[in-house]
Amino acid sequence: MNIKVRFLDIGTEPVVLICEEDAMKIGGKDNDRVRIDGKKPAIALLNVSDFVCSGEAIISSNLKDIVKASDGDELNIVYTSSPESVRSIRKKMDNEKLSKEEINSIVVDILENRLSKIEVSAWLTALYINGMDIDEIADFTVSMVETGDRVEFTRSPVYDFHSMGGVPGNKITPIVVSIVAAAGLMLPKTSSRAISSACGTSDFVETFCDVEMDTEKLRRISEEVGGVLAWGGAMNLAPVDDLVIKVEHPLGINPRAQMLASILSKKLAIGATHLVVDIPMGSGTKVPTIDVAKAYARDFMDLGEKLDIHVECAITYADQPVGSAIGPKLEARECIRILEGEKHPSSVIEKACDIAGMVLEMGGMNNGGEKAREILESGAAMKKFREIVAAQGGNYDIRSDDLVPGEFVAEVTSVKSGYVHTISNKDLVSIAKAAGAPSDKGAGILLFKKKGQRVEKGDVLFEIYGDNKAKTDRAKELAAKYKPYDIEGMLLKKIAAPRTR
Amino acid sequence: MNIKVRFLDIGTEPVVLICEEDAMKIGGKDNDRVRIDGKKPAIALLNVSDFVCSGEAIISSNLKDIVKASDGDELNIVYTSSPESVRSIRKKMDNEKLSKEEINSIVVDILENRLSKIEVSAWLTALYINGMDIDEIADFTVSMVETGDRVEFTRSPVYDFHSMGGVPGNKITPIVVSIVAAAGLMLPKTSSRAISSACGTSDFVETFCDVEMDTEKLRRISEEVGGVLAWGGAMNLAPVDDLVIKVEHPLGINPRAQMLASILSKKLAIGATHLVVDIPMGSGTKVPTIDVAKAYARDFMDLGEKLDIHVECAITYADQPVGSAIGPKLEARECIRILEGEKHPSSVIEKACDIAGMVLEMGGMNNGGEKAREILESGAAMKKFREIVAAQGGNYDIRSDDLVPGEFVAEVTSVKSGYVHTISNKDLVSIAKAAGAPSDKGAGILLFKKKGQRVEKGDVLFEIYGDNKAKTDRAKELAAKYKPYDIEGMLLKKIAAPRTR
Repeated sequence: MNIKVRFLDIGTEPVVLICEEDAMKIGGKDNDRVRIDGKKPAIALLNVSDFVCSGEAIISSNLKDIVKASDGDELNIVYTSSPESVRSIRKKMDNEKLSKEEINSIVVDILENRLSKIEVSAWLTALYINGMDIDEIADFTVSMVETGDRVEFTRSPVYDFHSMGGVPGNKITPIVVSIVAAAGLMLPKTSSRAISSACGTSDFVETFCDVEMDTEKLRRISEEVGGVLAWGGAMNLAPVDDLVIKVEHPLGINPRAQMLASILSKKLAIGATHLVVDIPMGSGTKVPTIDVAKAYARDFMDLGEKLDIHVECAITYADQPVGSAIGPKLEARECIRILEGEKHPSSVIEKACDIAGMVLEMGGMNNGGEKAREILESGAAMKKFREIVAAQGGNYDIRSDDLVPGEFVAEVTSVKSGYVHTISNKDLVSIAKAAGAPSDKGAGILLFKKKGQRVEKGDVLFEIYGDNKAKTDRAKELAAKYKPYDIEGMLLKKIAAPRTR
Repeated sequence: MNIKVRFLDIGTEPVVLICEEDAMKIGGKDNDRVRIDGKKPAIALLNVSDFVCSGEAIISSNLKDIVKASDGDELNIVYTSSPESVRSIRKKMDNEKLSKEEINSIVVDILENRLSKIEVSAWLTALYINGMDIDEIADFTVSMVETGDRVEFTRSPVYDFHSMGGVPGNKITPIVVSIVAAAGLMLPKTSSRAISSACGTSDFVETFCDVEMDTEKLRRISEEVGGVLAWGGAMNLAPVDDLVIKVEHPLGINPRAQMLASILSKKLAIGATHLVVDIPMGSGTKVPTIDVAKAYARDFMDLGEKLDIHVECAITYADQPVGSAIGPKLEARECIRILEGEKHPSSVIEKACDIAGMVLEMGGMNNGGEKAREILESGAAMKKFREIVAAQGGNYDIRSDDLVPGEFVAEVTSVKSGYVHTISNKDLVSIAKAAGAPSDKGAGILLFKKKGQRVEKGDVLFEIYGDNKAKTDRAKELAAKYKPYDIEGMLLKKIAAPRTR
């Protein structure tokens, strides 16, 4: 039907709002699709609204450039069926295997905004429940790569590493990249910002240099310096992933097939030939047991074989945070201190050197872990780090003391004496987020005690830092509520025979 | 954070649009929830928009009555976590059994608009894939009833019947209700409008009387006249169902648990004590085989037992349309003609009398089917039908000829001679919808040939009716494309022994 249109800035999904009466005339219902015949035809979701007058349609502004119309123009709006990919989504709901073409049509339709949130949610839920086999995941990965940009290096091989995440305080990336680059190998590292964590790698790296760059700049720095610490989100590498995350996030799911394709597609897009995957294992992470960890390792390696990337996996200890610091500036400071030669916290040094060592061994060196420690201790890694920071617009003469955490500090002390039995990653993340991390750069947590350590009543377990007093106070309240530390005596439970009279 | 708000009519989901920078300050991402501290606190979905200026938030108008603020006011907007029911949805994704409380929290949160489309879609997809056992479905049904109105009759027992649908032309409801009421039993029938079909019962009943009424009017007419033909959607019976359909529809799914709970909840809300369920079975319907039909019958009966409703099921033939007419006025005319004494089409008479007979037998009468035919032939059913129509604001002296189908008619003829082997329900529905059904009341299809009949080349197979020439023409084009009739000779395939040289 012909209808008078008006444009309004109403979010990201392309929608048309019309009244019930007009919707019936068009023959469409809520969440059906309509085609708007403007200069070019645009597809939008029908939204039945009581607020719109009969004979009028409100169109989301993001379609204005397609239909090239102005407020008050009359355009023809007709019902149109769902894209073919909705059938493929239904096939996955029915637990059928999808062809390369079907998977590709879903990826393309998500990217082109042709699938609604309802449909993307059904897709991810079906993926979560019914999964994909390795062939499907490989097709999925390739589709994700093909719908984005690719980096073409003149240098080869291209080394890369990736951490599955889930453990707070995992600040090893700048150390690993610096060591590997100092050894003469090229590692063009892209990282993410926090999705549900308190601090992603890019969240803390951007406290001392720029992380936003295009693929050309990434290529140039990597080839010249040997390493880079870029934010992947600024580039158009497997862009469909960013759209999917917006739906995964509120559901709190990350389907295995989606996760594997998402990781490998970014590596494939950057041209990685060799990849080390860090699989943190510990209670409260995505990987609670060694069996789950091994299954992931198998998946990564099988998928690498199909995609012609040499993959090795490291299962790492994640029952408590890595190192002592959680939050952007706190993590940046701890990371740079280690590059400067500080021997503490040893967990960060060990993990970084072991991972870097695996990359070096892939590059043909022997005793990679030892070699990595030598490079770190010699100062060569720090020198390489300075080069990377400078190339990314930071200060070559950067020092760890330049990173000053938030001015508001709250101490959390132990209410009893004993030993630290468990530390809840999840609770610490919630507390750090309440304090303002990752958007408040000074916010976070500094741990004074870790698992197995002796604690006396009144000892400081950790400090909460914040850029804002109210948030810091709120985080302290949360700490009192959650009690992330479990302190017990050595004697956990007494089992005695029943007394005889 | 405190932010200046502006209200805008942007659809039905409660949303807040803010820019990325402010979203980061709040600590929320796209599709996260925020609380708006107005007069009363309101929960909305965060929508990150490039169009909104920093320091400003656009709030959907449907929240204005809650927060009681005006454009330009400053309100505090803070991040808030998802409702607990999202965890229960995730449990169903993990194929766990849900408790009564968990199911109830999901139902209540959908009804109160606290779950987003993304979450409702995940819920329905999980239900579709993982299903529910009969205990869960019973809890689900009760929750759906408890969140809506109930009808309390002073008369008892309350008889009811329901058709699972899926077969076009199924116009038996007014005949069944009239027969049963004429026999002295009470059958307060609520029906639906078409969701994906060409014509629901309410779509054709409203061509000759009002179908919109509240529960009080439904109760009064039922008790006085013995029967009613109401549109269920106008009442607040199990209202969560209407919200769920909006998400099911674009996905093209109707999970078994949702379907069973949806049907039984409406029957429970109306106080039904005895229920006959019609399960149409045929290719192209929801129920393609006898095994599927029996499984549904088992479900309905088990569920009835748990809910204290006496349920009997009828598996009916649905390989082709019931009767000859598809579309509102055409179906109304055919239905009333039968009440007037017309003996054709016999499929409608047989089905209506068999179903009515089952209800009569539940009411203690013997030979229900025969009894039903007597009531129909005696004119008692027509008299009762007139009373119902008059009670619903229609004309007591209604005649079938009052119902005049659309003025535009297109004939579809056979291109060859032979026998009608198959008729595609699905194609006929698409053609009738293209002609304008159900919103164009005169639009639809009139069949001249049915399965097994002899057809000569050039014979009219069916006529397409329309209120609008363009739509009628489009429907005819579709008919030429779909070819819903399959005409073959008696010899379908020749299998001969290979010739010897």
